[in-house]
Amino acid sequence: MARIRLGMVGGGKDAFIGAVHRIAARIDGEFELVAGALSSTPEKSRDSGEALGLDPARCYGSFEEMAEVESERPDGIEAVAIVTPNHVHGPAAAAFLKRRIHVICDKPLTATMAQTEALAAAIKASDALFILTHNYTGYPMIRQARDMIASGDLGGIRVVQVEYPQDWLTEAAETTGTNKQAEWRTDPERSGAGGSVGDIGSHAHNLACFVTGLAVEKLSADLQSFVPGRRVDDNAHILLRFQGGARGMLWCSQVAPGCENGLRLRVFGEKGGLEWAQEDPNYLWFTPFGEPKRLLTRRGAGANDAANAVSRTPGGHPEGYLEGFANIYAGAAQAIRAAQAGQRDPVLDLLPGLEAGLAGMRFIDACVRSSAQDAAWVTL
Amino acid sequence: MARIRLGMVGGGKDAFIGAVHRIAARIDGEFELVAGALSSTPEKSRDSGEALGLDPARCYGSFEEMAEVESERPDGIEAVAIVTPNHVHGPAAAAFLKRRIHVICDKPLTATMAQTEALAAAIKASDALFILTHNYTGYPMIRQARDMIASGDLGGIRVVQVEYPQDWLTEAAETTGTNKQAEWRTDPERSGAGGSVGDIGSHAHNLACFVTGLAVEKLSADLQSFVPGRRVDDNAHILLRFQGGARGMLWCSQVAPGCENGLRLRVFGEKGGLEWAQEDPNYLWFTPFGEPKRLLTRRGAGANDAANAVSRTPGGHPEGYLEGFANIYAGAAQAIRAAQAGQRDPVLDLLPGLEAGLAGMRFIDACVRSSAQDAAWVTL
Amino acid sequence: MARIRLGMVGGGKDAFIGAVHRIAARIDGEFELVAGALSSTPEKSRDSGEALGLDPARCYGSFEEMAEVESERPDGIEAVAIVTPNHVHGPAAAAFLKRRIHVICDKPLTATMAQTEALAAAIKASDALFILTHNYTGYPMIRQARDMIASGDLGGIRVVQVEYPQDWLTEAAETTGTNKQAEWRTDPERSGAGGSVGDIGSHAHNLACFVTGLAVEKLSADLQSFVPGRRVDDNAHILLRFQGGARGMLWCSQVAPGCENGLRLRVFGEKGGLEWAQEDPNYLWFTPFGEPKRLLTRRGAGANDAANAVSRTPGGHPEGYLEGFANIYAGAAQAIRAAQAGQRDPVLDLLPGLEAGLAGMRFIDACVRSSAQDAAWVTL
Amino acid sequence: MARIRLGMVGGGKDAFIGAVHRIAARIDGEFELVAGALSSTPEKSRDSGEALGLDPARCYGSFEEMAEVESERPDGIEAVAIVTPNHVHGPAAAAFLKRRIHVICDKPLTATMAQTEALAAAIKASDALFILTHNYTGYPMIRQARDMIASGDLGGIRVVQVEYPQDWLTEAAETTGTNKQAEWRTDPERSGAGGSVGDIGSHAHNLACFVTGLAVEKLSADLQSFVPGRRVDDNAHILLRFQGGARGMLWCSQVAPGCENGLRLRVFGEKGGLEWAQEDPNYLWFTPFGEPKRLLTRRGAGANDAANAVSRTPGGHPEGYLEGFANIYAGAAQAIRAAQAGQRDPVLDLLPGLEAGLAGMRFIDACVRSSAQDAAWVTL
Repeated sequence: MARIRLGMVGGGKDAFIGAVHRIAARIDGEFELVAGALSSTPEKSRDSGEALGLDPARCYGSFEEMAEVESERPDGIEAVAIVTPNHVHGPAAAAFLKRRIHVICDKPLTATMAQTEALAAAIKASDALFILTHNYTGYPMIRQARDMIASGDLGGIRVVQVEYPQDWLTEAAETTGTNKQAEWRTDPERSGAGGSVGDIGSHAHNLACFVTGLAVEKLSADLQSFVPGRRVDDNAHILLRFQGGARGMLWCSQVAPGCENGLRLRVFGEKGGLEWAQEDPNYLWFTPFGEPKRLLTRRGAGANDAANAVSRTPGGHPEGYLEGFANIYAGAAQAIRAAQAGQRDPVLDLLPGLEAGLAGMRFIDACVRSSAQDAAWVTL
Repeated sequence: MARIRLGMVGGGKDAFIGAVHRIAARIDGEFELVAGALSSTPEKSRDSGEALGLDPARCYGSFEEMAEVESERPDGIEAVAIVTPNHVHGPAAAAFLKRRIHVICDKPLTATMAQTEALAAAIKASDALFILTHNYTGYPMIRQARDMIASGDLGGIRVVQVEYPQDWLTEAAETTGTNKQAEWRTDPERSGAGGSVGDIGSHAHNLACFVTGLAVEKLSADLQSFVPGRRVDDNAHILLRFQGGARGMLWCSQVAPGCENGLRLRVFGEKGGLEWAQEDPNYLWFTPFGEPKRLLTRRGAGANDAANAVSRTPGGHPEGYLEGFANIYAGAAQAIRAAQAGQRDPVLDLLPGLEAGLAGMRFIDACVRSSAQDAAWVTL
Repeated sequence: MARIRLGMVGGGKDAFIGAVHRIAARIDGEFELVAGALSSTPEKSRDSGEALGLDPARCYGSFEEMAEVESERPDGIEAVAIVTPNHVHGPAAAAFLKRRIHVICDKPLTATMAQTEALAAAIKASDALFILTHNYTGYPMIRQARDMIASGDLGGIRVVQVEYPQDWLTEAAETTGTNKQAEWRTDPERSGAGGSVGDIGSHAHNLACFVTGLAVEKLSADLQSFVPGRRVDDNAHILLRFQGGARGMLWCSQVAPGCENGLRLRVFGEKGGLEWAQEDPNYLWFTPFGEPKRLLTRRGAGANDAANAVSRTPGGHPEGYLEGFANIYAGAAQAIRAAQAGQRDPVLDLLPGLEAGLAGMRFIDACVRSSAQDAAWVTL
Repeated sequence: MARIRLGMVGGGKDAFIGAVHRIAARIDGEFELVAGALSSTPEKSRDSGEALGLDPARCYGSFEEMAEVESERPDGIEAVAIVTPNHVHGPAAAAFLKRRIHVICDKPLTATMAQTEALAAAIKASDALFILTHNYTGYPMIRQARDMIASGDLGGIRVVQVEYPQDWLTEAAETTGTNKQAEWRTDPERSGAGGSVGDIGSHAHNLACFVTGLAVEKLSADLQSFVPGRRVDDNAHILLRFQGGARGMLWCSQVAPGCENGLRLRVFGEKGGLEWAQEDPNYLWFTPFGEPKRLLTRRGAGANDAANAVSRTPGGHPEGYLEGFANIYAGAAQAIRAAQAGQRDPVLDLLPGLEAGLAGMRFIDACVRSSAQDAAWVTL
């Protein structure tokens, strides 16, 4: 089958997440990157594009130009990946959606609630698909956990513990002049009002909701900016109340020395418990109450269909972050091909989109508002 | 050196913690159990005493009787271990303290703030020592962690994550008629207003404060009773604010399937992080920011004097819960011998006593009050 | 840069390792699969090719045909991946090498020593590159370990412990009629005289030699076929003597329940020790003698240049089996481009080729011979 | 019940294993140390005895004197613990056995086969019990493993992997003049012809046989002395053939940096596999073939009667080395009390004694002989 023609906005040289998206798009051979507005300055965009082997004629100086030109080419892009800082997500996505080009967008949805509303309108107005790369939902054992909970293996959910500690902002990396990542992610103009809650807390929130199938109704957030001069939170302690009575805690931090990318989820119900850690993603611990703990492994004896459907290698041959990310792209490809045939593929039920994005934005907004009121309960 | 003559209140047949205290008292050969009021019914007390090889004449029907009689014997007990349900701690301890018999008391201090005040007065009025068995502070690697933090190895403390999940009350064990433990621990009359926060949350709070050297100033607690009909909390989510600006979270649960006795502490400072888990107590993870994580082991290459002082076997020969508990008894023995010689042994600085007990009671009380106000901030 | 045009021999539907090679070739965007002799029956070859989106004209019924036709096309393949059962490796590779098409070949080199000699001659006679996918050498932390040992971090090597247990042949899977993998891997005609020693023992041997930089001089092997009727070994216990005096043990098994793909290497020297496990490949444990153990992580604080050179994502974003495999392909691409420019790229020093392949064949042969003599020492 | 009066031979100041025996004897309150020949020089013996609170009149200058005097006291010792260097085990044990004093002796049985024969005769000639502290058999999860295998949970045993690496002799500690342990354990006169094989290889061998219920029939051993000048082996690689067809490997080392006390056992059968590691002794991994791996924990949901019988604390309250050791003493107490009542307690079936001791001596002897013949197969 021919590959889906893909464009990219953002993701020029030295951009971490752009390279990740490109690999994720390549792993299953479903996409071919053919155009890019890889940087906000035209020359840089061209340089980055050339380094990637793009046709110079399809290296654009702006996403507007790319959307316009590509939408008129017979061989124009069918989908676009948006991997810019958050405040660009909205306008960029809108530009492609209105031209019926499918959008795969990095999370969070946008930088502000106002931007979010505009984007939501654009998504609703378009026939094209909008997929948000909450990539951690792509891990096979996360799919398994979701399926097990939906099947009742844990009984009614009582307690959700989710955390996402990192340590890369333990010192004031944004002031050294050499760390672009640190700069934009701690700049509320580009990143949004949430610092750690926007960057990683939103992943933790999304993962907890995805796996449990529950929405957060209320939260109480105590946000901190431990590093002097930092303009956004770099650590957050959050109490959660889910619909239906489950309760939870969410901790995210960028100042926890020894934690690299410590996303970890534990869910406890009336009948059993599950534990999963992103850094060791091929394992899922399951304890039916009153029985020994079981180590479920990707493609191992206890793996279920939901996990196996997004797994490439046999048990014991570890898959990682890129494969999990690629599962979002593989799902997107499947949904895009169906859409091109005028159908809705059920894989869309598993892929984060507008709804998850809105929930995420409300989560970030609620965190910031709650913390401003000394951790008062705020309804999402 | 002659062993210290020890009595015991509570701890009859089938009582978990009484047997633990007895082993802890024996491990280092510093104590000899010679008397007991092991049960609240005289016959049971005698039966339990005989099973332990006690002189029947020193098996008492009540702690009052034991205190009176033993204090008049020339070979009477020098110290007493109190291992009853919480509401008995206060009167029992007072009975011995006023007769100058040293008291080693299980935690928490008492069941209510009123009882606590009475006990505090009794302790202050007595020359005898009062030691509270917050036994987890006895683990060598916990002593090491405290020492490292006091020495500045982590810099200023920013974040404290402490948790203590168990699963033994996932179902309504207190209604089966066969689980005495479950019965009194979920009975507010005997246990106090706190359920999980009193039983294990208090350990978690104590450990966090012991290791960091910081007191909790304020907390916001969301307590739950997930099991229908349960009269006290069986799960609690708590936000912490420490003196000096550190923030924390505390989770305790008795309804988390797959968790046996999952006390775990993580502390993060400006310069590094520490992690420790009670179920694997011979390990302490230390990450100086910007360096690889190091696995410090009991009596291993990275063990410090504070750890080595309470360690009995070489590295790789694991010590456990009983040895950690025994370290409290060994410290108590040292302090008692010094007291008998008219001196104050500096080991008392490491042993939990009235101050830690009061902090614990204030913690439990604050949790209950905060939760009653929908998790409002409460000052301890 | 234009992608390298790649063909594939073997790897049709249901073939595990063919799919792995294709993903590995895609991850870094350096290769484009354009032709295939994917099966030994022409129709199946065409079906498999179509499923992969290949031009039907370039789906061949035999590798001979593919070699001939492709070598004459102006846009013919520049490299070929050979992923057949072992006995086909030799003739297939020779067919392409003599037409100056670079070969990337699955391990082991061939099925017999005689085939090996023929292939060695073909490799030496050709200008084209021959790269053997001992893929475990592509893991970043394995590259790091090799570099650390070469730099003297462990001092003189004394002890090498390497093991590779699996459990998939615990029962007689080759007799069920539904497991092609089990069938050819236990058939000495197609697999070679070694069963577990050929399939996975050869990986373990290769990894030990790659990391330590030492060759095995002698071995004593005790091979077993535990499953009744099995025609090759399914478990092997091997003593190793390395050049320079180091000693080792190698265990490989296909009948060890609970082991999925448990390749694990430990190396101990005069000054320190290293430990690595394939199922958790982002970690490398390093203990300088007399210091605490350190957990080195991929792209973490302790990662060295050798690891970082083959790493795509930040620390804590786990890479896995496919990325390690892709590192062999990335290296091959680099070497092929250099070769096309008339140069030798130093990456070839890190890539397994004829020499590693010969060592592997001698290892398998020595195991079989030693075991036939009741585990007598055999010189490689 | 009155405590059993215990004497001790060896175990003076600074002796590691003597202190361990004393704690093990105290933990369950079954023994009271009342006499000692703690050192080979009378003054040291007295000093050490006083430090332990022994009656100076019962601190003897030699074991002969102690045996003679104590056997004539009405309150003389009922049992003796022998914790000297290996070459003293035989004569000391004989002195007590012939006076009908029960013997608890550290392993290995003796230093030489000749000494072993003499001791075996003494044991057979006496009514008193002889118990050898192969303490690792006392761990609850080891008892569980033995019971599971005897019950057929693994089916027929195929493969046994056992290892015991340490690192404390990585350098020439025996030449510093400050390490008594290192001195006698590397002195063939005091320790026996085996170095690492005698000290720890014998534990590994014993554990493998205890758990599987199988005896080693033949072995092939490659012993090394890596540290220049060392007079005994400090590393050993051994192939094992068990009765009934199971095969195994045993590695022991004292020169493996990063390994503290790494005794580890893995057993694989037709139907499942088990894994256990001494440094984390409360866990036992069990994989029934074709099912997910289960983590069995001491006193957890999957613990069996054999484990529970020797367990003191609830699941999650870790027990360690000393409790495992104490289980040998608790068993000895039970057997001694039965013997005093003229009965044989079935606990003796679980306690290592002469038979295990002989097997251990034959193992050590076979290792040394095999290695002297270039790792030829030697029958035990």
